[in-house]
Amino acid sequence: MSRTEKISWLMPIVIALVALSIPAIMRGQQSESKPPLSSWKDGQAKTAILEFVRQVTDKSGPKYVKPEERVAAFDDDGTLWTEYPRHINQIQMVFSRQRVRQLAGNHKDWKYTQPFKAILEDDDKALAVALQDFWNKLDLLRETNGGMTVDEFGAVVRNFLATSKHPKYKVPFTQVAYPPMVELLAFLRANDFKVYIVTGGGADFIRELSEGVFGVARENVIGSTPEYEYKETSEGGYLVRKSNVDVLNENAAKAENLQLHVGRRPILVAGNTDGDLAMMGFAAGGKNPYLNLLIRHDDSEREFAYDDNTVKAVEYARTRGWTTVSMKNDFKTVFSFREE
Amino acid sequence: MSRTEKISWLMPIVIALVALSIPAIMRGQQSESKPPLSSWKDGQAKTAILEFVRQVTDKSGPKYVKPEERVAAFDDDGTLWTEYPRHINQIQMVFSRQRVRQLAGNHKDWKYTQPFKAILEDDDKALAVALQDFWNKLDLLRETNGGMTVDEFGAVVRNFLATSKHPKYKVPFTQVAYPPMVELLAFLRANDFKVYIVTGGGADFIRELSEGVFGVARENVIGSTPEYEYKETSEGGYLVRKSNVDVLNENAAKAENLQLHVGRRPILVAGNTDGDLAMMGFAAGGKNPYLNLLIRHDDSEREFAYDDNTVKAVEYARTRGWTTVSMKNDFKTVFSFREE
Repeated sequence: MSRTEKISWLMPIVIALVALSIPAIMRGQQSESKPPLSSWKDGQAKTAILEFVRQVTDKSGPKYVKPEERVAAFDDDGTLWTEYPRHINQIQMVFSRQRVRQLAGNHKDWKYTQPFKAILEDDDKALAVALQDFWNKLDLLRETNGGMTVDEFGAVVRNFLATSKHPKYKVPFTQVAYPPMVELLAFLRANDFKVYIVTGGGADFIRELSEGVFGVARENVIGSTPEYEYKETSEGGYLVRKSNVDVLNENAAKAENLQLHVGRRPILVAGNTDGDLAMMGFAAGGKNPYLNLLIRHDDSEREFAYDDNTVKAVEYARTRGWTTVSMKNDFKTVFSFREE
Repeated sequence: MSRTEKISWLMPIVIALVALSIPAIMRGQQSESKPPLSSWKDGQAKTAILEFVRQVTDKSGPKYVKPEERVAAFDDDGTLWTEYPRHINQIQMVFSRQRVRQLAGNHKDWKYTQPFKAILEDDDKALAVALQDFWNKLDLLRETNGGMTVDEFGAVVRNFLATSKHPKYKVPFTQVAYPPMVELLAFLRANDFKVYIVTGGGADFIRELSEGVFGVARENVIGSTPEYEYKETSEGGYLVRKSNVDVLNENAAKAENLQLHVGRRPILVAGNTDGDLAMMGFAAGGKNPYLNLLIRHDDSEREFAYDDNTVKAVEYARTRGWTTVSMKNDFKTVFSFREE
């Protein structure tokens, strides 16, 4: 064959290869040279995740789940990023403490009332005690997150995110996510999962960072919300965040609100406390295969080792065969802002 | 040039053409030979929609809206499909009437209590009067849609959809949608809009048909819901639909629940009554360009001509420059099950 003949003979193959590669290029997948979950250490948790995703996406296998039913639900605080100790380092607590200091001028009574008194006096011990009272927690939320329009609240949160740093790590809050979990979210989306954040925190608060930090769109954030009130002028309408909490998205409410928002059971749930067990049980009760991941904070060197509100969760994981993720043994990296 | 030389010279162009066409094929768009909105008559409404979509998708234009902000909210009953007269032909009313007849054996008191008495006696006039009382309406919903698990309710609704016919048109309910509106939903999705159904009807009810009839995924249905209660056995958890209505998704609640579920203002809203005005006002109050569509039932020949609950809506459309859609003048087809 002549050179040109050889080229023209090869052309159909070249065309086929180019054509086949285009969809992958469109989906932005061809440039990933790293294998999936490369920020996870090899071990039982990584294997369980990879195997589960392989099975539910294998069209010819017995555990195949149609893409529309691939719903994944992730708790955020303590699951996707650091929160310990809650009354000092949890993001919305840092926000609320800042708001109390900013608003104190208009609330002379806060000097004498918990939990505001403890915050104004920077008394972390007293604050921890005060917040054990559910109503104090609710008061703090109402006073610092309510009583303004949805648009105003969004602006206040964006300003906080742009100017504040994590009390311990001294980096912006947008940098205290766990890379292995962020990678897991992206891996699931690449396998046609619909990924939701299901948080006890405020939905409108988390929505201001969910896309940027976790790649999760605003509408995929399910969280606590105040009562909204629609108001209108002839120019158009707007929503006010009233001072009462309408939805407290914790425990059983996390399963109930998955139904309210998604109308499907999740097939993958990740959480770190007993507060996430209802979501996990909801996944376990369905007809589809499921994977429940319990994140364990057992790394005192790279983060913290603690066991708050996990007695039932640890017991369930053990007796029901749910998957435990040890931050110490399963995470290659805990934070991206430092070398490890 | 020799023949083979000519072919090999052409090959890069062929490759480029094939490559360029692949993404379109993947998106299933190349086979559409019809121009968009071909089931609409030419006129002011069709022009307004085409022009709006052109502007918000024109990246170099002043009215460009990023895809993630392209939220469209559609009422369903009377907007996407026929519902008149409500107490006789509206789908969930037909369902509820059937349920009352099925369950009457266990409710001897229904013979003496409205609205059940009117339903059991097939007295449409008395039913219309009884349902003017809000509490009767709520009683009917509670008794016929509550008190079972979410899974059980889904099965009951699917059975109803598979076996029931529209009282007037004698076709399955899945066929009484308006083709121009179904086409509009698909046109918006093809232009990267996120399309939501925002219904006063039950979310879990509409979710059983939203994908099949309207191409709208379950999670994009926002509607009325009972209180859910999470329950659990060692096998896993499930949700019960309790007998009280938790969310009644009408009027202001439609705007408030868009915030709860989506966390964004819509930029396109379609409705047919005053009950949809809050959604429209919410769109109008935002910073983005918006389009509000008021569907008018003015076609006594092909459907019905009626004006229930529209005084304020008509006034708003006129004074605020919102777009009126006349079913008589703007719809080429009203129903797909008959020749027109």
